[in-house]
This record gives sequence, C-alpha cells and structure tokens, in this order.
Amino acid sequence: MSSTYGTKVKISIFGQSHSEAIGVTLDGLPAGFGIDMEELQMFMDRRAPGKSKYSTPRKEADQPEFLSGLVGDVTCGAPLTAIIRNTNTRSGDYDNIRDIPRPGHADYTAHVKYGGHEDVSGGGHFSGRLTAPLCIAGGICKQILAAVGITVEAVIKEIGGNSEDPYSAIDEARAAGDSVGGIIECTVTGMPIGVGEPMFDGLENKVAQAVFSIPAVKGIEFGRGFDAARIRGSENNDEFYFDGGEVKTRTNNHGGILGGITSGMPVVFRVAIKPTPSISIEQNSISYAKGEDAKLAVRGRHDPCIVPRAVPCVEAAAAIVIYDLIR
Amino acid sequence: MSSTYGTKVKISIFGQSHSEAIGVTLDGLPAGFGIDMEELQMFMDRRAPGKSKYSTPRKEADQPEFLSGLVGDVTCGAPLTAIIRNTNTRSGDYDNIRDIPRPGHADYTAHVKYGGHEDVSGGGHFSGRLTAPLCIAGGICKQILAAVGITVEAVIKEIGGNSEDPYSAIDEARAAGDSVGGIIECTVTGMPIGVGEPMFDGLENKVAQAVFSIPAVKGIEFGRGFDAARIRGSENNDEFYFDGGEVKTRTNNHGGILGGITSGMPVVFRVAIKPTPSISIEQNSISYAKGEDAKLAVRGRHDPCIVPRAVPCVEAAAAIVIYDLIR
Amino acid sequence: MSSTYGTKVKISIFGQSHSEAIGVTLDGLPAGFGIDMEELQMFMDRRAPGKSKYSTPRKEADQPEFLSGLVGDVTCGAPLTAIIRNTNTRSGDYDNIRDIPRPGHADYTAHVKYGGHEDVSGGGHFSGRLTAPLCIAGGICKQILAAVGITVEAVIKEIGGNSEDPYSAIDEARAAGDSVGGIIECTVTGMPIGVGEPMFDGLENKVAQAVFSIPAVKGIEFGRGFDAARIRGSENNDEFYFDGGEVKTRTNNHGGILGGITSGMPVVFRVAIKPTPSISIEQNSISYAKGEDAKLAVRGRHDPCIVPRAVPCVEAAAAIVIYDLIR
Amino acid sequence: MSSTYGTKVKISIFGQSHSEAIGVTLDGLPAGFGIDMEELQMFMDRRAPGKSKYSTPRKEADQPEFLSGLVGDVTCGAPLTAIIRNTNTRSGDYDNIRDIPRPGHADYTAHVKYGGHEDVSGGGHFSGRLTAPLCIAGGICKQILAAVGITVEAVIKEIGGNSEDPYSAIDEARAAGDSVGGIIECTVTGMPIGVGEPMFDGLENKVAQAVFSIPAVKGIEFGRGFDAARIRGSENNDEFYFDGGEVKTRTNNHGGILGGITSGMPVVFRVAIKPTPSISIEQNSISYAKGEDAKLAVRGRHDPCIVPRAVPCVEAAAAIVIYDLIR
Repeated sequence: MSSTYGTKVKISIFGQSHSEAIGVTLDGLPAGFGIDMEELQMFMDRRAPGKSKYSTPRKEADQPEFLSGLVGDVTCGAPLTAIIRNTNTRSGDYDNIRDIPRPGHADYTAHVKYGGHEDVSGGGHFSGRLTAPLCIAGGICKQILAAVGITVEAVIKEIGGNSEDPYSAIDEARAAGDSVGGIIECTVTGMPIGVGEPMFDGLENKVAQAVFSIPAVKGIEFGRGFDAARIRGSENNDEFYFDGGEVKTRTNNHGGILGGITSGMPVVFRVAIKPTPSISIEQNSISYAKGEDAKLAVRGRHDPCIVPRAVPCVEAAAAIVIYDLIR
Repeated sequence: MSSTYGTKVKISIFGQSHSEAIGVTLDGLPAGFGIDMEELQMFMDRRAPGKSKYSTPRKEADQPEFLSGLVGDVTCGAPLTAIIRNTNTRSGDYDNIRDIPRPGHADYTAHVKYGGHEDVSGGGHFSGRLTAPLCIAGGICKQILAAVGITVEAVIKEIGGNSEDPYSAIDEARAAGDSVGGIIECTVTGMPIGVGEPMFDGLENKVAQAVFSIPAVKGIEFGRGFDAARIRGSENNDEFYFDGGEVKTRTNNHGGILGGITSGMPVVFRVAIKPTPSISIEQNSISYAKGEDAKLAVRGRHDPCIVPRAVPCVEAAAAIVIYDLIR
Repeated sequence: MSSTYGTKVKISIFGQSHSEAIGVTLDGLPAGFGIDMEELQMFMDRRAPGKSKYSTPRKEADQPEFLSGLVGDVTCGAPLTAIIRNTNTRSGDYDNIRDIPRPGHADYTAHVKYGGHEDVSGGGHFSGRLTAPLCIAGGICKQILAAVGITVEAVIKEIGGNSEDPYSAIDEARAAGDSVGGIIECTVTGMPIGVGEPMFDGLENKVAQAVFSIPAVKGIEFGRGFDAARIRGSENNDEFYFDGGEVKTRTNNHGGILGGITSGMPVVFRVAIKPTPSISIEQNSISYAKGEDAKLAVRGRHDPCIVPRAVPCVEAAAAIVIYDLIR
Repeated sequence: MSSTYGTKVKISIFGQSHSEAIGVTLDGLPAGFGIDMEELQMFMDRRAPGKSKYSTPRKEADQPEFLSGLVGDVTCGAPLTAIIRNTNTRSGDYDNIRDIPRPGHADYTAHVKYGGHEDVSGGGHFSGRLTAPLCIAGGICKQILAAVGITVEAVIKEIGGNSEDPYSAIDEARAAGDSVGGIIECTVTGMPIGVGEPMFDGLENKVAQAVFSIPAVKGIEFGRGFDAARIRGSENNDEFYFDGGEVKTRTNNHGGILGGITSGMPVVFRVAIKPTPSISIEQNSISYAKGEDAKLAVRGRHDPCIVPRAVPCVEAAAAIVIYDLIR
C-alpha cells in the first residue's frame, strides 16, 4: 500500500469513504506561509459533492480541520495534518457489494489483495472521496505556487465525446441510468525553465504518477500527445525564437517539457477519465459466496459523471508534483 | 537529476551518448538467478541501431560487459553493474548544436538547467542511446519474470498514423528528410492478481513513470484509455464471470488494472512516440552566442523513426516496474 | 522536514506539543491483523507522563483515537491513522522561551531553521511528546512481530552513571533542581537469519536512524560496541558452533548482526540518553530581541529524567525498523 | 540489498572484492564543478592498502576511471560513474571460507541470505574493499563542501584502548597474529546553522545511517555521547552566548546538533571500529558441508588493524550525508 507521494514535500493520504475521518499530512512545507483558508475552502468546494445537479446528492461540508503544522493560519515547519470527519454515510447501501463486486470498480482487486479484510463501505480507501484530502494538499500547494507566479488551471475539454455541450452528455446518461467520462486539460503557467530531471524523474513522469492516483484516470498525454504520433517531425518540432530577451517556441506541441525538463512554455496535459463504474443499470458480475455468476444492481447515490468534480483534483495532483520539484 | 528507479530493485542508469561508457546498476536482484546471456543479447539487438535500413547507420556492438553482481552468469546478491563502451562516436557532428539548440530536443532545457555545462555531444545523458542500459536492466527483469510465467510483449500499432503498413510511413519520411512517430502497444500476461497499490503507487502510476523515461514518449493510456472517455459506463465496465474456478472479465477495457491493482486479466497499455526531432530539413532556432534567431541544419546520423527500436524499450520499462512490484 | 520513516511500511508522524492533536499514519500494514487495543494502551501507558513520581505531573490520557485503517479493530489494508488530542496544555509556561532559547534544546536551531515561525509552545514538533505517536506505531509493530515470534524488550542499564540503583540518581537530581540521563539496552529475540542488507540499509544503519529520532539520544552501540574497539579480534570474534541443527555463536559480541544482516543471535544495542535539558537551575543563554546574553529560568513541568519513559520509545523505534524489514 | 544512499544526491555502490571492477554512481551532482583529480587521488591513497607497514601488503592502484558524468574534469549534470578495476586478486586464498565461515565476518549471514550464491572471494560485496568507491564519492563531496567552506576531518583517538601511542597497539597485535580495533573522531567545521530535520532525518540519524555502512563499525556517539548519560543537565547543557554578532555555545557537548539540526558549532562524532575479524590464530567455526563444528585458520593478506585506513572512510560517509543535505 502506498498513499504517500513526494521527495521534498511528503504527502500522506489516509482514510476510507466511511471511516471516522479522511485526511492528509504534508511533511516539508515551508515555515511562515499563511494559508488563505477561505480560498482553500472555495477550492475544496469545487470538488465537493451535492453542489449541483450534476453530482451526487450526498451532502458533505468537506471542511478541513487542522490538527497540526500551523500557528494560527501560518505554517510553522512541522508536518501539517488536516482531516475531514465522515458524516452522512449510509453503509447499508453497500451490503450487496460485500459479496458481488461492481464491474469497473476496485472491489474485486481489493478483495483479493486484502484477503477479504478490505473496507467495502463506500469503496473504502479506493473511493473518490479520498480525492478530498488530495485537494487539501493540492489547494495549499496551489497557493504557495501562486505566490511565486505559477498558476495551475484545469478545464473540461469534452464529456462523453461531446466537446460542444459537455453537460448535456451528463443529462442524457443520467436519464438512462448510465454514466459518462470525459477529458480534462490542465495548463500550468509561470513555470521556471529547468524544472524536472531526465529519465525517471522528469516532469512528465511525475505528473503522470500523481494524476493516475485519481480514480478513473486511464490515460494522460502531454502537449500534442497521441496526435504527435501521427504527424511528421517538421510539423511537431516547436521552433525556438527570441521574444525580446526571452526564448520561446512558436508552437507548443512539446507541452512545455523537453527531456523531462520545463522549457518555460506553458505545461499542458490532458487526462482521460473513464465513465463512473457505479450505474443503476443491472450488470453481470460474480458472487464470492456462491462461487458463481450473479447479477448486480448498484443502489445508493452515485454521480453519473465525475468529470466536473475531477477538475480540481487534476489541478491538485499537478500542484503537488510541481511544488515538490521547485521546493 | 534522477536516473534512479525502484523500491525493492533500485535501477541506476548512467552515461552520455559520447562518454567513456554507458551502463546500469541493478541493486536488489535475487541471488542465484542464472542470466541467459544469449537471450539478453538478442533482446539488446532488437534495440540496437544499424540493424536494418529503418535505423541509423551508426553501428554499435551494444554488448554488455558485466563488472559486478555475478559469479559466472549467476547473480550473487550484490548489485549488478553492466556497461557498454561507447565507440564510433563522431563528436564533430554536434559542433553547431553547442550554440543552436535543436527544436524538439532537450538541448535548450539542458542548457539552461546545467548552466551551459551539459554534455552536448550526441545529446549527452538525454540521448536515446541511454535506452541501451535500460534494456540491459529490462532484459534481465524480463527473464526473471518469464521464470514465474509473466511475459511482457510490445508491438507497433501504427507509425505516422499508418496502422496497415507502418514501415512505408518511415520510407516516405526518410525520402523527405523528415521523421515520423507512432504508437506502441504493450501486453503483460500471467500477472498475479493483487499487484499494485491504491493511489500513488498503483501499477498505472508506476508504469507511466517508467515509460516516460524513454525519450520521445508523449502519452500513455491503459486498456481502452482515451477512448473510454467517450463511451458510457454500461459499455466500459467489464463484466466479471467465472471461467472454471477463475474470475475473469469478458472484455478488458480496464487493461488489467482496477484501482491501481492487477485483476489477473492481461495488462495492456499504449504509448505515443513523437517523431524524431533530429531531421535534415533546415529549421528555425536561436543562437545562444548571438542572442538572436538562427537557422539549424542537423547533420550526422539520425533515425527517421525510432518507433521500431523503442519497442523493446517499452518492454524493458514495463518489466522493471513489474519486477520491482512482485520482488 | 522529514518525520517519515520506512520503505514497505511508511510511518508519518505529525503534531506539536500544543497543537490540536498529535498522531501517526502507518501506510503498509498487512490487512487482517487484529490489534489488541488493551495491550496497545498498556504499552502507551509505559511512556505516558504522570504515572509515577519519576515523571512530569502533566497528566494525559494518551489514548489513541483511530481515524482510519481499521474495520472494527482489524486492519483493512488502508493507511492507519491514530491521533491523540492535546489537552491540559499551558502555553503561558513557554512565553520566555520565545525570546530566550533553552540550552541543550532545539529552541535555537528551530528558530533559525524556521525563521522564527516555529511553534515554541512545549517545544513544538521537537517535544518529547511526539514520541507518543511513535509508540502507537511501534506498539502496533510490536504486536505484529510478536505474532511471528519476535520480541523487542528494552531495559534501563544505568541512570546518571548509577547502574546499581538507577532511580536514586533521579531523586538526587530532582532535589537539586537538575536532571540526569542514562543508558537503555534493547534486545530483540526470535529474529530470522538474513534480515538486513549490506552497506547503507544494514540493520545497524536502520536501527540507528530510527533511534536517533527519539529526542535526547546521543549515542548507540551494537553488541560489544565501543568496548569492542578496545579488545583484540581473538576475543571479539564470536565462534560459530552447532547447537543441534542450529548455528549459533558462543558469545554475542556482534550483537546479532554481521555485515548488516542478522545472524539469528539476539540483536542487542544500547542507547545513550542525555540529561533532560529543561532544568530549574538558572542558566546562561541569549535574548533574540535584545541581541545580548540573557539569563533563563525554565518554568513549568519537567521530568528530571526521561530515561524511564524512553524505554518503550526505544522498543517502538526498533519494532518499526524490524517490521519494515521483514514485511 | 541496498547499496544506495541519498535523497538529492543518490549514491549507488557496486562491486565485489574480486569482481571485474568496483565502482560508484553519483546521481545529482551539480553541473559545472571541476574535480581536482590530484586531490581526489591523494584522498583515495589515504585509504589504499599497501601504503605502510600497518596495512595489508596487497598493492592496488585504486585509481578511479571515470565512465560518465564529466566533460573533461568538470561535472556536466549527468550521473557520474567511476570504477576501479580489480587486479592482484588471489581467489585461491578463500577456498576454505566457502565451507567454513570466518567468525566475526559476514560470511555466514551472507551465506544464509543469498542461499549459497554469495560471492565468497575476498568477502564479496561485504569486503572492506567496497569502501574505495565510498571514498570516491566522499572525496568528491568533500571537494564540493570545501568550496563552500565546510571541512570534514577525522583522526584516530585510540587503537586497542591505547590513545597515547595507538600504532604500538597494532604492532603488538600483528606480532601475536591477532588484530585490534579503535576509535575515530570526526569533526565538521563551517556548517551552516539549520541543516538537518527533526525526527527521522536529523543529521545524527543520517550520519549514523551512513557511517554504519563502513564494515566493522559497531557504535557511534555525537558530542559528549555516552558520557553525557553520566553527567547532569546543568553540566551537559551548552550555554549560548553572543560572540560578536554570532551565537555560539561555550562548550560543545551537543556536538553541533540540537534536535537533529546544526547549531553552527562544529559537528563532532566518534565511531567505534571493532578489531579486524580475519586473524591468523586458529578459530572455532562450523563446516556447512559436514554439518559439524570445524577449525579455521584464515590464510592470505589481512590488516591487523583497519582503523588507519578507516579514517578517510569516516570522512567520506560524513561528507556524503552533509552534501546530500545542503545540496
């Protein structure tokens, strides 16, 4: 098990969907940084459920309680820990999942890995709910980055293949008792040149490692990405030029990263989010107890699409990686 | 700088394109494993240049010399180090690159990061040549995996957008003094269920981290990948069923990984390789010395397409990750 | 900052003496282990203050509250987090320390490192109070080790140079408004042969790294330790012999470790604890504000000797290291 | 197995006593540092055998061959690898050790750990010879530290209990076919204030972890060390005072480290080296083959005392740790 990330800033996420609390420890923050708590809450709210008709009606405050690492709202150099108490949980909703794993979910792989001791309720540690502490960590890193002129912003590019009117794809899926995924694009501006390393610790390597921590992510591409595999070098190569004293490239097919290292151009990457696996439509699965095939109808509250709520999570993952690199 | 990967097996790659030697240390191999040297050489040969008309005419033996870690051909528990001497290097080819960085290459980012002290010749530590030690490490890991029934195999899916006759795309690019990229698909069979971790150390996270160490990789997707973002949950969810006593899924849109953990289905991922940045066509760049825009014509020996030689590299990266996880 | 330890089991400690709470996350525990909560509390109580006349009168329940990682009292494979709320804190006691650092304490070094943003109250993150979460982690590891026949036990060897009647040395120091340190010996039995690695990750290296996390530790020695530097090889070498089918050594000058690796003999090490720096006697120090020398009289509640309370902490540190190695 | 150290500068040591070569990779050195090769060789020579009557007559050049990481003698940002070819090895000397492990050596623990596949010749990876690549790494780090005013110097405090005339203790041991150990003291001056972290990554923790990588080290103490356990707080606490604008302490019982963090006073630690286990005197051991007790007479070339040659190794270990922290 490893819910720990980072070299200079170590981030350790804990909690299950229905445990007493979920939370995060950030070990390595600078001393003396004043956290803007209102801004952090606004960032958390972008991820929180129950905020719009496009997300699950489960209502949660998702308000971090800080246990350590601060004097007032200012970091003191000690590890910062924040938790969110779990409330409004209805474990009964998950009774049938104890025996019948949801297709597309981690239920089955967790069942085998943890020998049946996994916390089934709400998906346990595999729940999308664990992206809340990710957002606490990422929200703080975003503030520190902003203070040095680095911004991290993600947007929805398409949902269910629809880039014109993405939300209508959600409405249609909901009406059908089904779900949809989508594509999120994240842009980082203000990056200093020279951040990242060759080979295993390049910026692409690290962003990819962090972004795949968000449940439902199945792909990532930087700059022109998969499309670059289909064009020629003469088109894909980004020409350098002087813009005043600054070196820039006329295009940004490289997505701001060459050889794992930032070029000073915006870092751009896209993330593929699969459709939410929990759907109302009855599905074929298996029963552990009976050792035979079984039908499953997932009950309870589920988003038909988590893409809108995943947007701040992608920002959070990117912010954590970048801050760890420039710390 | 970090050319080191792994937790239980630490892999440390060193060397520049034109340094005395390139090589790799594997720290954490099991004692008592007999390396099949002939098989390893055959694996290395798949990556080696000069083997066909589709790769650079620079001829290299790429024969590993083992400095430590073996008694005979059998691992002894001590770190294993193997090197390849660099010969047949023509540094003069790179004289103009000292002043004018190649578009699409790491020349410029390395120049800024290392303050002008970078080894320019042949791309230095950023050269594709550094995938040779990656293949030594990966080739050994592949053999150890094969001994427990795990196979790692990659194939070319398309080159320059051409999936029917990929090699003709290379011929056309070469004729034009240009280059092309492509897409490689890798499949791992025989994986035990339960390998990988939730969140940051999932199998997707780790494979992605390792695969982006191969120069020119700009994207990765698992299972149905980006396409999953365009279909509904009812289609994307892979139904579980019993096949004899074994749990399987009827489709494999999840690419063998759920919640970062293997399901026992084949692990499948695809990698986007950008076109080789070094092309004969004159390009626009800058001159550090003059502080103004400049033209660059890249001389010397260059592949019009590195996709065929990247196939064993993708296998190597996957093998390293998987062996580190199951060690 | 790094309050994180471990490779296979990552332990992350957080909190300050007077923050909302202190706590610990263990990431990598096996699923399905039932924690004996009563036994854990008894272990915590050995470290807790206010239990005897030999420790500070500050009374704390030191009862862990588990936030995650359990279903009932059984580990579920997710990271386990436990916290202890801080109560009964009297920050006013530390007002003068804000300006005048205590000799022998981390007050001054933390002040410089964190630029004056450090949490002064109670020593902040440097407080001996942070050994409580260390003991939560270590107490759980001890239970898992005990289940496979490995016991970790520490005892007081001497206090203030007195090995005959160690507690009388405490009484004398207290009467003088002074403090004393001492030496603790820890023995690990039931170790499998072959645990540990050569060079940097040997068992000695790792135990030393962990034990120096306990505030006030200034030395560690294994087996015959410093005394071995004063005898000849013929005396120090431990002869091997067969005891039934088992290989043993007749003496244990090597402290159960040869080449960083366990020999199957008991692992034995001793730890030097300096006298508690907080004493009632007036001391010479400096004033940050005045930029000149100043007198300091430390007020508040302080142990004249922390050696008795450090005993379970040494066990905890050893247990964490050993479990991380055999996991 | 883990012969890898470091966070910002990763050091990976490889080789066996009688393998083709031994060597080291440093990943993370700054680009643009010119290595003084003559000074490095002089540092290596302090460790090399055959230099005086006090060390083994095996003569080795111990001259590093640099494979990568340099352009000329200047670091280029890529991982630096240097090797030393093994020559003048007489494997025949170790034939009996294949069956009869040397008391006090890692022969037996390696035999169990590596299932009989360990490289027996010359102690394999456990040989003191592996401190040569440690000294390459440490020698380079020492030069980088010196450039910023940090010096690392170790001296012999006593040998065989003799602090007045340490070398005479060696002569006596040699005459008796026996061996002796001793104590080395290392002092680091010019340390910036604030280096190191609380808890697990304190400077004491890290120096201890690194120093125990030197074979034969059995203890370490900082500042007043074990002796501090025998005095009172009023004596052990080091008073702060202003010396001009600088804060200093009048005594240095804390060895330059408080709370894991440097105070600006010299860092001082002492290391206990056990007597060389290889002695001419016949010893009792066991025979693996016969499964019974056996006599062993160690043949070949062996130092009666490795303390003089360990002095630069202690400096090297300290230099590596400190440079990794301040990088």
